[in-house]
Amino acid sequence: MYAAIDECAMRFAQIPEQRQSLIEFLAQGITPERMQRLQTVLSQRTRHIAVMLENIFQAQNASAVLRSCECFGIQDVYTVETQNAFVVDREVDMSASKWLTLHHFNTHQQATTQAITTIRNKGYKIIATSPYAEHTLDSIDLSQPIALMFGTELTGLTEIAMAQADDLVRIPMYGFIESFNISVSAAICLHTLTTRLRASQHNYGLSPDERDDLMLRWLLHSTKHWHLLVKRFCNTQ
Amino acid sequence: MYAAIDECAMRFAQIPEQRQSLIEFLAQGITPERMQRLQTVLSQRTRHIAVMLENIFQAQNASAVLRSCECFGIQDVYTVETQNAFVVDREVDMSASKWLTLHHFNTHQQATTQAITTIRNKGYKIIATSPYAEHTLDSIDLSQPIALMFGTELTGLTEIAMAQADDLVRIPMYGFIESFNISVSAAICLHTLTTRLRASQHNYGLSPDERDDLMLRWLLHSTKHWHLLVKRFCNTQ
Repeated sequence: MYAAIDECAMRFAQIPEQRQSLIEFLAQGITPERMQRLQTVLSQRTRHIAVMLENIFQAQNASAVLRSCECFGIQDVYTVETQNAFVVDREVDMSASKWLTLHHFNTHQQATTQAITTIRNKGYKIIATSPYAEHTLDSIDLSQPIALMFGTELTGLTEIAMAQADDLVRIPMYGFIESFNISVSAAICLHTLTTRLRASQHNYGLSPDERDDLMLRWLLHSTKHWHLLVKRFCNTQ
Repeated sequence: MYAAIDECAMRFAQIPEQRQSLIEFLAQGITPERMQRLQTVLSQRTRHIAVMLENIFQAQNASAVLRSCECFGIQDVYTVETQNAFVVDREVDMSASKWLTLHHFNTHQQATTQAITTIRNKGYKIIATSPYAEHTLDSIDLSQPIALMFGTELTGLTEIAMAQADDLVRIPMYGFIESFNISVSAAICLHTLTTRLRASQHNYGLSPDERDDLMLRWLLHSTKHWHLLVKRFCNTQ
């Protein structure tokens, strides 16, 4: 849905100086208060924690996870869609996907392995939730970036995913019911881990290049006729 | 749905010695491992934190909240149902309501006030979530029992409810979206607060009388033909 904006942003990523000029050009079309808001949210964004969702079936669950990611400042969500397409419920989502970076893995039978390999190659430790884990959310190591994996509502993560996890984490439970609803599980993990992260000494913010790239995308999303404005900008260059 | 069991339990609550005998009688019909599980969960149950839900519309949200309460050992849920009946989604609920104590307020126009007054008279401090709150989940005082209020998905708590709150609490947010899905909000609150509670010196467990009452109810729920067994028990007295 946002492919055209992605394409535009990627084009300008090749020419950082022009990207900076385009940002300044587009910024003229929004209020200073709005720009301040974009900058504040940007300064609180992190890629130190990422989320991977494997075949989440219910749109309401998928959307609630995206909404939680956005609320906690988690930028990247990786979706594996071999069994179930990743569909969001617009009412629940509240446009979260507009402000996030979604990475889809759905064209290959080994999409789970592809996704995990891609994430690991970016420097993440791969974490799965399991009631048998040694670590809880308070004790798991955050010195390295981590990617949390969540599976389907009915059967959880696949064996393939579990087998490729570097570590496990659990949420202590005290009742008869032995699992949380998946969007609840994700929210609890993200809340606890981001709270720890923000209180830590770890350098969890985005790099200057990542911030410019994201600022441009957000400005493009903020403007209805962005493609006309970009055209006008290019004509002046 | 569980009215007959409630009635039976209330009857035996009047005669504690007989209740104890009935518990021992019913326990013969379950395995020692199952009894151990009941006792473990019972020992981790708390009424120090309770939940009040005001007109939750979506069955999936209501059920997810019940499921979270059960997983975290929260026994009491108070529901105000003046606009929307409290309907659970059995797949999401996973029979949580069987193990919890639900208090319904739906027959009076001032059900919200009735519910809050009832809860306050039991010694609870009434807490509402608000983005403008001074306290976060890490700083709110837990020395007195607290009841957390959550409102509808669209409009949140009513003004009546907000006006009667003793204190407010907020979940820090870092994105553009300014609210969490209601079941997510409840789960984050319950996870953080019960984790703090269990690590504290507060005496948060159930009283011996509350434990016997709950044990009897759980044993009755565990047995298909409970009414026949109770009848047999009474015939031997």
